[in-house]
Amino acid sequence: MNGMKIVTIGGGSSYTPELIEGFIKRYSELPVSEIWLVDIETGSEKLEIVGQLAKRMIEKAGLPINVFLTTDRRLALKDADFVTTQMRIGSIDARILDEKIPLKYDVIGQETNGPGGLFKGLRTIPVILDICRDMEELCPDAWLINFTNPAGMVTEAVLRYSKITKVVGLCNVPIGMKMHIAKTLNVESGRIHIDFAGLNHMVFGLRVYLDGKDKTADVIDKLTAGEKQMSMQNIASLEWEPQFLKALQAIPCPYHRYYYKTREMLQQEKEEAAVKGCRGEVVKQLELDLFELYKDPDLSIKPPQLEKRGGAFYSDAACSLIHSIYNNKGDIQTVNVQNKGAITGLPYESAVEVDCIITQDGPKPLAMGELPVAVNGLVQQIKSFERMAAEAAVTGSYETALLAMTINPLVPSDRVAKQILDEMLEAHKEHLPQFFKEASYR
Amino acid sequence: MNGMKIVTIGGGSSYTPELIEGFIKRYSELPVSEIWLVDIETGSEKLEIVGQLAKRMIEKAGLPINVFLTTDRRLALKDADFVTTQMRIGSIDARILDEKIPLKYDVIGQETNGPGGLFKGLRTIPVILDICRDMEELCPDAWLINFTNPAGMVTEAVLRYSKITKVVGLCNVPIGMKMHIAKTLNVESGRIHIDFAGLNHMVFGLRVYLDGKDKTADVIDKLTAGEKQMSMQNIASLEWEPQFLKALQAIPCPYHRYYYKTREMLQQEKEEAAVKGCRGEVVKQLELDLFELYKDPDLSIKPPQLEKRGGAFYSDAACSLIHSIYNNKGDIQTVNVQNKGAITGLPYESAVEVDCIITQDGPKPLAMGELPVAVNGLVQQIKSFERMAAEAAVTGSYETALLAMTINPLVPSDRVAKQILDEMLEAHKEHLPQFFKEASYR
Amino acid sequence: MNGMKIVTIGGGSSYTPELIEGFIKRYSELPVSEIWLVDIETGSEKLEIVGQLAKRMIEKAGLPINVFLTTDRRLALKDADFVTTQMRIGSIDARILDEKIPLKYDVIGQETNGPGGLFKGLRTIPVILDICRDMEELCPDAWLINFTNPAGMVTEAVLRYSKITKVVGLCNVPIGMKMHIAKTLNVESGRIHIDFAGLNHMVFGLRVYLDGKDKTADVIDKLTAGEKQMSMQNIASLEWEPQFLKALQAIPCPYHRYYYKTREMLQQEKEEAAVKGCRGEVVKQLELDLFELYKDPDLSIKPPQLEKRGGAFYSDAACSLIHSIYNNKGDIQTVNVQNKGAITGLPYESAVEVDCIITQDGPKPLAMGELPVAVNGLVQQIKSFERMAAEAAVTGSYETALLAMTINPLVPSDRVAKQILDEMLEAHKEHLPQFFKEASYR
Amino acid sequence: MNGMKIVTIGGGSSYTPELIEGFIKRYSELPVSEIWLVDIETGSEKLEIVGQLAKRMIEKAGLPINVFLTTDRRLALKDADFVTTQMRIGSIDARILDEKIPLKYDVIGQETNGPGGLFKGLRTIPVILDICRDMEELCPDAWLINFTNPAGMVTEAVLRYSKITKVVGLCNVPIGMKMHIAKTLNVESGRIHIDFAGLNHMVFGLRVYLDGKDKTADVIDKLTAGEKQMSMQNIASLEWEPQFLKALQAIPCPYHRYYYKTREMLQQEKEEAAVKGCRGEVVKQLELDLFELYKDPDLSIKPPQLEKRGGAFYSDAACSLIHSIYNNKGDIQTVNVQNKGAITGLPYESAVEVDCIITQDGPKPLAMGELPVAVNGLVQQIKSFERMAAEAAVTGSYETALLAMTINPLVPSDRVAKQILDEMLEAHKEHLPQFFKEASYR
Repeated sequence: MNGMKIVTIGGGSSYTPELIEGFIKRYSELPVSEIWLVDIETGSEKLEIVGQLAKRMIEKAGLPINVFLTTDRRLALKDADFVTTQMRIGSIDARILDEKIPLKYDVIGQETNGPGGLFKGLRTIPVILDICRDMEELCPDAWLINFTNPAGMVTEAVLRYSKITKVVGLCNVPIGMKMHIAKTLNVESGRIHIDFAGLNHMVFGLRVYLDGKDKTADVIDKLTAGEKQMSMQNIASLEWEPQFLKALQAIPCPYHRYYYKTREMLQQEKEEAAVKGCRGEVVKQLELDLFELYKDPDLSIKPPQLEKRGGAFYSDAACSLIHSIYNNKGDIQTVNVQNKGAITGLPYESAVEVDCIITQDGPKPLAMGELPVAVNGLVQQIKSFERMAAEAAVTGSYETALLAMTINPLVPSDRVAKQILDEMLEAHKEHLPQFFKEASYR
Repeated sequence: MNGMKIVTIGGGSSYTPELIEGFIKRYSELPVSEIWLVDIETGSEKLEIVGQLAKRMIEKAGLPINVFLTTDRRLALKDADFVTTQMRIGSIDARILDEKIPLKYDVIGQETNGPGGLFKGLRTIPVILDICRDMEELCPDAWLINFTNPAGMVTEAVLRYSKITKVVGLCNVPIGMKMHIAKTLNVESGRIHIDFAGLNHMVFGLRVYLDGKDKTADVIDKLTAGEKQMSMQNIASLEWEPQFLKALQAIPCPYHRYYYKTREMLQQEKEEAAVKGCRGEVVKQLELDLFELYKDPDLSIKPPQLEKRGGAFYSDAACSLIHSIYNNKGDIQTVNVQNKGAITGLPYESAVEVDCIITQDGPKPLAMGELPVAVNGLVQQIKSFERMAAEAAVTGSYETALLAMTINPLVPSDRVAKQILDEMLEAHKEHLPQFFKEASYR
Repeated sequence: MNGMKIVTIGGGSSYTPELIEGFIKRYSELPVSEIWLVDIETGSEKLEIVGQLAKRMIEKAGLPINVFLTTDRRLALKDADFVTTQMRIGSIDARILDEKIPLKYDVIGQETNGPGGLFKGLRTIPVILDICRDMEELCPDAWLINFTNPAGMVTEAVLRYSKITKVVGLCNVPIGMKMHIAKTLNVESGRIHIDFAGLNHMVFGLRVYLDGKDKTADVIDKLTAGEKQMSMQNIASLEWEPQFLKALQAIPCPYHRYYYKTREMLQQEKEEAAVKGCRGEVVKQLELDLFELYKDPDLSIKPPQLEKRGGAFYSDAACSLIHSIYNNKGDIQTVNVQNKGAITGLPYESAVEVDCIITQDGPKPLAMGELPVAVNGLVQQIKSFERMAAEAAVTGSYETALLAMTINPLVPSDRVAKQILDEMLEAHKEHLPQFFKEASYR
Repeated sequence: MNGMKIVTIGGGSSYTPELIEGFIKRYSELPVSEIWLVDIETGSEKLEIVGQLAKRMIEKAGLPINVFLTTDRRLALKDADFVTTQMRIGSIDARILDEKIPLKYDVIGQETNGPGGLFKGLRTIPVILDICRDMEELCPDAWLINFTNPAGMVTEAVLRYSKITKVVGLCNVPIGMKMHIAKTLNVESGRIHIDFAGLNHMVFGLRVYLDGKDKTADVIDKLTAGEKQMSMQNIASLEWEPQFLKALQAIPCPYHRYYYKTREMLQQEKEEAAVKGCRGEVVKQLELDLFELYKDPDLSIKPPQLEKRGGAFYSDAACSLIHSIYNNKGDIQTVNVQNKGAITGLPYESAVEVDCIITQDGPKPLAMGELPVAVNGLVQQIKSFERMAAEAAVTGSYETALLAMTINPLVPSDRVAKQILDEMLEAHKEHLPQFFKEASYR
């Protein structure tokens, strides 16, 4: 028996069927023999539901893949070939807090940006570093494919604070942008190439090519002339000022709205929260509905309803990446890796999101040169924030966390930062043991 | 006759008496023979008033310095040794617009930061570049000592868009911080050295030394334990969150409040504007009062009331710099010069504010290495803004100006940026010919 | 009629049949409609001979490609799609001087390295820059594919001293190394990938992959355990010290022997020159033989004897590159392009030889990160030399040429540099007008 | 009793009287209370002789400084304020081998350059790192002032392989160059400032100022118009080619002759070695003579004969540096410190020789920007060599040592490198235990 062993941490996630579908589709070129879905005790029920669906899907496909469900992470990791991580520390309830608390202070409440992103990082990074320590011991040659958000901050932390070097952070934003731009140009997405550079959820399409010809100006023209601009399920779709986009000479990603449209996005968030609840609350209901569907013993495919979740394509992107690594495919994918000079001016050791050739030896970034002047400043600021956030997550230093919060461009002052920090630390206390090692921490 | 020829553009400024006093004090080591005060036609009356005061001051001091008053800039520049610039395009009324218009949109209105700083740059840079062209022709060996704000953006523009390389941008913030910290430590300021690095109005005291011993931690302790923090005449003196300052491990400058306390500063500005008018309006009255004083034919000293203006020490800093250059003094002053690698990560060709050895060959920056991670992001963002602003000032491109406005961290969105931009362009139309070359500009 | 127009400067070269064969082989995917072979007056006879062979080859292949022979370069360049350059200023006789004069001074005499390489650059660069000026005017969208040596120095000069940005420098060394290593591992070369980084004729194979797996250590083991090391027709095949190669942890190119085996290479050169003449003399005879063959009206293929020339695969590499650009192929080729941060520590604007993805928008370098410490020094030194050489070629400054010669690592002193420089300037006077603008130049 | 404690490792050196004189001269501003001269057992006799002279000198000066002589290094280091190192592992006999063995292979034999410099580093670095470990424990606040050669390589090793950060490497070359140029210009050296940048024994005077005015071109004119060029006691005084110096636009140091005049220097060395022995042999006799002098109980001053040794001013430079640190003097001295961006393009963490402001917090480098293109290559190559040499010294790897030897620009091939390496390893076996840990090392 010598097929590949895949381990998925957070295997009880509602996204797992997409992952399973991805492996089924690619089986002829990607001979997976074992998929281990791992989750924690409190996720056992969901793990069971989604795990059974996974088994039915594979059975239907008639493939010799064994699916294992377990809460014993170390058992699962032993001799793994690829480890994917898609967990959510504190589950959806923690996300709802990440979104709601900042809003009280008139600050954007968002899962991967601003105070919410910081706290998601503070909760997630120690767990990821724990996994890394296990991997060093149990499967030192495995690749860690992380699509747990905030993926950039998490990849930064792995690169700086663990010994794991075979790590890739993954996001569905670049692939979504590519598909949207293909649609804008009314062509198949395979004919499009985009030079992507930046950070996770802070990536810019620097140039767009159609069959190798530079069409950036055309795309910007279309986007400022009434074509629908890209958004995502979880992001309000406010449109850019045409002259701003023309001057930028690059395609922003949907998350850039939080930075270049802060006021309007906040306004919209507040209105939506008042009417239908924050995004986390909406998602929580979606999740319940999905799991109801998953329970159906007659269901043996990925249900179409899953695509309504914001993370669509994430799991498929992971399969695609694993496929290209395993087969030394040499195609270009946009992933989070060590910079190594690919983006001039960002730290050599830091994680960046950039076009890479995918080989069996891992992703190799293309040299993107200098970012446009207007873009460099914001990217640098988010990198500063990510580095301080990762440091705070590792050290559990209250002061460092306050500094990270204050320098985040969505937070309007050190005072507000402190207020939000204090309330969020208290609210997430259970999942932030590093900040509560001593009786009084400040 | 071979003393030095000093030319002061904007000679009708209320600050001129401080400059004159500075030259008088240093005469034994700085043999000035001619001071040319230059102003524009509409400033003739003020030029006459302040010029006569200057003459009385020199006469009283009994020094053989000739003071010339003129509106013919080219005549003045011929064979100058040092050219200082302290003009205000559009006078105080333009400043009042810079402060008031943004406030209408709930955005900080400030002379050198945010939209106000951008517009001051857009008005000033073309005039400075004009002066540079004259200098190339009329006094190619002269030093340009610029203390016209925004001094960093102006220096950036001179370095990138003129052939003048002998340029220094000057600010009174570092010297003010040094004096304040000396007071905090209760010692003479001569015993203090601070490693300053950053940009103009965005400078950080990275380390503080007393007699060469690192006292940074002590200073931060004092500043977070009730000691009054530094402010300036024109900046509300809100205090830093103690843990923020401790985590920062550097001393911010007073202007950093706009960035790290944006919400509270805006609130304060709005309240003050409602009660006593914006700072420009206050200053306008102060200026009227000062000129009334200056008219007094019995006045032959710099009147003490001048120190209430925010720019105190600016002119003295200029004299001190000229003195050190002329005498090849080799002391350390904090000025704006080409980076040349002094601050790692900022562009080699850009203007930075940094400690320099002052020699007859000009200021030579000290190598400061990397900025602290938490600080680097904001500094990079302001440098991106300054570069786009300088480009907009030179090209008169509406789109570039919109981009500069949008990426400024004090501006909350592209939409608000456009609204403010449109109103301010219209308001300052007279002093922004580069944006109105054609009938319709957008 | 809308196929592609190819222009080959130096079309009378003996290599032209390989180029023609390359276009014939690829015709189905590379629809060339016109090939213009351009040469200078004194090369008319060779142009006619090789041109007629080209026509016979195409006729035999039955393809609708028109071959034009001309000495009117501007006529040829009009609306070209690709311009290849393969000329030799001063012909083989100049090369013989480049090789023989340094030997008199006990210094390596080589076509592209040391004093010979410098002089080949000094003669070639002004002509290439002239071609660039013509291209700007006559075919501004064309690609310049340069395989005239010294290709790195020439590409550097084009990047720094012309307005042409669509330039690629080409060399057959990387492809030769790949084939040699494939042979060493006894596998097909298509399964091998090598991370190449460095400069032209100064490129290192940093890592070798077989089907994506890192096999660098294995390759080094084989190369130090008796396997034949790679050489070329024009380079003596001395073997590396095994421990040196192991410590280097990279695969040097054949030309590195001049730098890491200077003494033995010089000894060998001297012996060979005494016995059978220098390489140029050998080649001169080979060329005569080839042209005799080419004259045969029955010959309508590339004769196998051509492969004995050192430049084998050069022309095929050019066709392959043109093919990948035209078809936006996205494969990896190792070419000379602007660095743009691809190799950390080398100038951003300089030419480097590095793996690139080949797209219709041109080659995009992969980020290679830092060179190994031991390798960086020599690469930097050659880049310094290339930059000074390019400057000397453009300015015609005797002093700059002397400086370039002295800092070349193969030249043992400033005194010897001056002696060689003086003799070579005199010998090549006819092709170095820039150095003889005035009656006396030193 | 609270004066300073100075510890001098290698206190039995013939240079010690200069050091003692330096402290005596500066006593009023530099209150030294204890000087500990430390040496190894086999140096006891010399330690006693020079130690007694030191005591007589201090007695004569009537100062309350206690001189201690000891072979117990740890006893001496306890609570030291400054530790100076001036030892020679293997004594003069080792130097003689460093000079003679390479000559056998027609390679420059020199104490701090080429194979000799490498071996001096291999012997010295482990001892220095040992001292650093002791200092960490016994005097963690002390400054390490190293003037043991090769000072650059040693400083590199301390920065990279120890925890000591308060380290300065010192050389008498910059001060010697300054004095020579002052003489060339016929002015007092205090009026001269030189921008020095590079590496130890590889430093360039980039610009020369007289009273702050740039006189670089004048100095180069004089040096190429018959003025005597600088040399040193231990370096043959061959003159530069005038046009080479003009093109260089910088002042090379005397050691640059080994790199830019390799052939002539080798010739001269061989001739001198044949006639009067190598420099080490000459020095050995000088040393014997000096110690004879030192024994004289009536001698209580530094004898003038000491200045004939090549290292004159070294010890005085050390006193001057200690004086400036202790008194927070803020003057500029040229020393070896961590680069921190001072010289663009050299590694941030590496040791460089550069102008620094000397403060109580240590030397702070001035930002020198980019080295001239022609100079950068050689400097990079020597830095590569120094880094590999330091690594070899620490690891004891035969292969790394061979790589270091081969990439040294004075060594003509890997084969010759191996021959020299093998012979020198055997010759210095006693002082290179790290290379002989196992029975057979290759």
